[in-house]
Amino acid sequence: MSSTIFIQTPFQSKSLNKSLNTHFVPSFKLPVSLSFKPRTAAFSKRVHIRAGLIEPDGGKLVDLHVSEPERELKKREAASLPKVKLTPIDVQWVHVLSEGWASPLTGFMRESEFLQTLHFNSLRLDGGSFVNMSVPIILAIDDLQKASIGESDRVALLDSDDKLIAILTDIEIYKHPKEERIARTWGTTAPGLPYVEETITNAGNWLIGGDLEVIAPIKYNDGLDRFRLSPVELRKEFERRNADAVFAFQLRNPVHNGHALLMTDTRRRLLEMGYKNPVLLLHPLGGYTKADDVPLSWRMKQHEKVLEDGVLDPETTVVSIFPSPMHYAGPTEVQWHAKARINAGANFYIVGRDPAGMGHPVEKRDLYDADHGKKVLSMAPGLERLNILPFRVAAYDKTQGKMAFFDPSRAQDFLFISGTKMRTLAKNKENPPPGFMCPGGWEVLVEYYASLTPSDNDRIPQPVAA
Amino acid sequence: MSSTIFIQTPFQSKSLNKSLNTHFVPSFKLPVSLSFKPRTAAFSKRVHIRAGLIEPDGGKLVDLHVSEPERELKKREAASLPKVKLTPIDVQWVHVLSEGWASPLTGFMRESEFLQTLHFNSLRLDGGSFVNMSVPIILAIDDLQKASIGESDRVALLDSDDKLIAILTDIEIYKHPKEERIARTWGTTAPGLPYVEETITNAGNWLIGGDLEVIAPIKYNDGLDRFRLSPVELRKEFERRNADAVFAFQLRNPVHNGHALLMTDTRRRLLEMGYKNPVLLLHPLGGYTKADDVPLSWRMKQHEKVLEDGVLDPETTVVSIFPSPMHYAGPTEVQWHAKARINAGANFYIVGRDPAGMGHPVEKRDLYDADHGKKVLSMAPGLERLNILPFRVAAYDKTQGKMAFFDPSRAQDFLFISGTKMRTLAKNKENPPPGFMCPGGWEVLVEYYASLTPSDNDRIPQPVAA
Repeated sequence: MSSTIFIQTPFQSKSLNKSLNTHFVPSFKLPVSLSFKPRTAAFSKRVHIRAGLIEPDGGKLVDLHVSEPERELKKREAASLPKVKLTPIDVQWVHVLSEGWASPLTGFMRESEFLQTLHFNSLRLDGGSFVNMSVPIILAIDDLQKASIGESDRVALLDSDDKLIAILTDIEIYKHPKEERIARTWGTTAPGLPYVEETITNAGNWLIGGDLEVIAPIKYNDGLDRFRLSPVELRKEFERRNADAVFAFQLRNPVHNGHALLMTDTRRRLLEMGYKNPVLLLHPLGGYTKADDVPLSWRMKQHEKVLEDGVLDPETTVVSIFPSPMHYAGPTEVQWHAKARINAGANFYIVGRDPAGMGHPVEKRDLYDADHGKKVLSMAPGLERLNILPFRVAAYDKTQGKMAFFDPSRAQDFLFISGTKMRTLAKNKENPPPGFMCPGGWEVLVEYYASLTPSDNDRIPQPVAA
Repeated sequence: MSSTIFIQTPFQSKSLNKSLNTHFVPSFKLPVSLSFKPRTAAFSKRVHIRAGLIEPDGGKLVDLHVSEPERELKKREAASLPKVKLTPIDVQWVHVLSEGWASPLTGFMRESEFLQTLHFNSLRLDGGSFVNMSVPIILAIDDLQKASIGESDRVALLDSDDKLIAILTDIEIYKHPKEERIARTWGTTAPGLPYVEETITNAGNWLIGGDLEVIAPIKYNDGLDRFRLSPVELRKEFERRNADAVFAFQLRNPVHNGHALLMTDTRRRLLEMGYKNPVLLLHPLGGYTKADDVPLSWRMKQHEKVLEDGVLDPETTVVSIFPSPMHYAGPTEVQWHAKARINAGANFYIVGRDPAGMGHPVEKRDLYDADHGKKVLSMAPGLERLNILPFRVAAYDKTQGKMAFFDPSRAQDFLFISGTKMRTLAKNKENPPPGFMCPGGWEVLVEYYASLTPSDNDRIPQPVAA
């Protein structure tokens, strides 16, 4: 069982103090080893060492951008089409689709894809095989928009500034069963789910599916576009580094030394298994997050500090932004997080406790069982090729004065520092125990909380207006 | 597309007036044709004419009964085991499991099966293939029962009269996430779902999975056990009749002539396709149903009349009772209804408008989109081998004075007689239009409603206490 691999071998500390160079260190091209057999029995059933990176879902990465010579033609065509206005989150989904994170999807889901996603968390391909697809990627429109589309089989999609983003072709309009969508995606219909309130509650009662023709690559001009590598670009980078294993770490929180421990330990174990050059994809989620998460720009500053401070090795780490919005849909969403990383070239996926989870919006408990995420992920149709690496719990070891893997036999030696605790410390400009997070990273957090206006509700700090 | 087959060919009326003999007419054994090619292009992608009946899921029908010589031993063993009391609906599920309707399940689900059912509506087998499994078949226990089980790895299951029903072995106890189970199974958590209120709301917070050793075949001693054929018995009956196609019709309502038209028309089309002897499995659901459904005993009387009156041909019809309880979970449940019939030997499944659906318990609308059931069924993992036959809508044709397939080009000629309308007529001892239902069958309905005590709430008639 792969779920035991982090538990059976005792942690060995390892000091990493390479200086920061760039996230993309050139490396000498070597042929990828073909002959390797995994040495760890626990891994032998799951690991497939292979030449080159893992294949994308459907065999080919989707690219939905129109070619540059076509752009002007498409713009002229769009001028005469019915228009649909996109929300910023809709644009994030166009971004996700355009670069093939959701390969083989070629646009917003039509009803058959939507229903398969809701009921089966997977899509059947023509040959009879399945790809995973657990969250609906759909576009809602209201009655007025539907009426304005009439009999047209294509529509132009505009952003909130009326800039043309894409043309949606061969469209299909069908009902938006909101309650059912919410229940089947989140396993609850309780009021207060962030993505639901942000994008579904007030959305239209219709969905419009079709194939996307995206006019130009989506850019946010927020200084972070250079971190937004597409799956194609990530694959090129992994190949350039001669990665023979890519292990992805999805996150939407500041990196502390427990995370760093886990990531460096994972690389060590992959080396032990016989991989020559496992590369970490440190992949913060960059789309919509709820109000009390640390915003992307601050997280990226914090992640840069972590690399600068040498907590992670920049030579074997690629930091990039995953453009997807966040659903907070636990076991359903973690499949999407994993599947998208296959398309980016990752064949190992680190999964923690309660991935993509949150507190129940109404009841005093976590919304999801903390173990369901990794269990569901390990059984999900279409993810058979991905090696799931369960997250071993790290906590602050008071006897060593640093983050270490939790040892239940001496539980009293460990201190769990929750997200809430961490936020409270940072807000009060207090320091966490030494060794919890590199000082540069911690300063970024303190700075972030200091930048917030005081709010009556501490749980949902409001960013200062620019 | 199979969805068009009933629509493209005009209906031809056919008079069937064979006398009732028995439901199980002996017929001469002929070798099953191997060489047939489907003649209808629309069918050619889906139909597999094959020797013998369709294979059960997992390749082998599960039989969970202990052999007779073992019974006494098992009873003695059970005496010393922790006890779990079953509700009548739990016993129905033991029945379902014991006879292999849910093959390859060998007992109440453990957590990995439960999670796969909730998230994927399917179970992955060892070889990597999938079988469909859309509704959780689980057993809930409360804190006290859990405590009483302690460290035992087996428990005895008793019915409400303390009669030993089964031993559950190699048990696994895990949390019962009620809200999530309801949301993912029904696509809503609105109060008033009949199965939820009957079996989940007040159920325990734990689930107990394991393998069943069922002491003796489940009997209800209600005069209807002779109709409760197991999948093994049904398969024997189909073989005895030399069926080369079995088409299943799930129902939980009285049969009217619209149903009969559909069933006889289906047989005609299967003959046209080249099958020599398509047999109808008329398969009323016999487990728990909601209070305002017509009870099983009355439905069975009504079905017998329909056969006696020659509306359906007894030579090519097997009437049997499907022992499953009813979830009213629409597109999720229809998969279970279809999958169980594969195990009973059916390779064609007739699916109607809004299968297993009901009104939304709170809002003024149907709970499910009327077309989602057949769409979901046609895409469901593990049901690829089953040929889905969409139900063509029948209505009362006023120009012909009988039930006929609805023709939208002369919609004004048709009268739709809803279930509510039918119930109101029968309650008031009025007659439906001639040709709606055979007179003998209608009399049974009138008699049933006359047997009810008057109730303030007409929608939920209460049966007279015995």
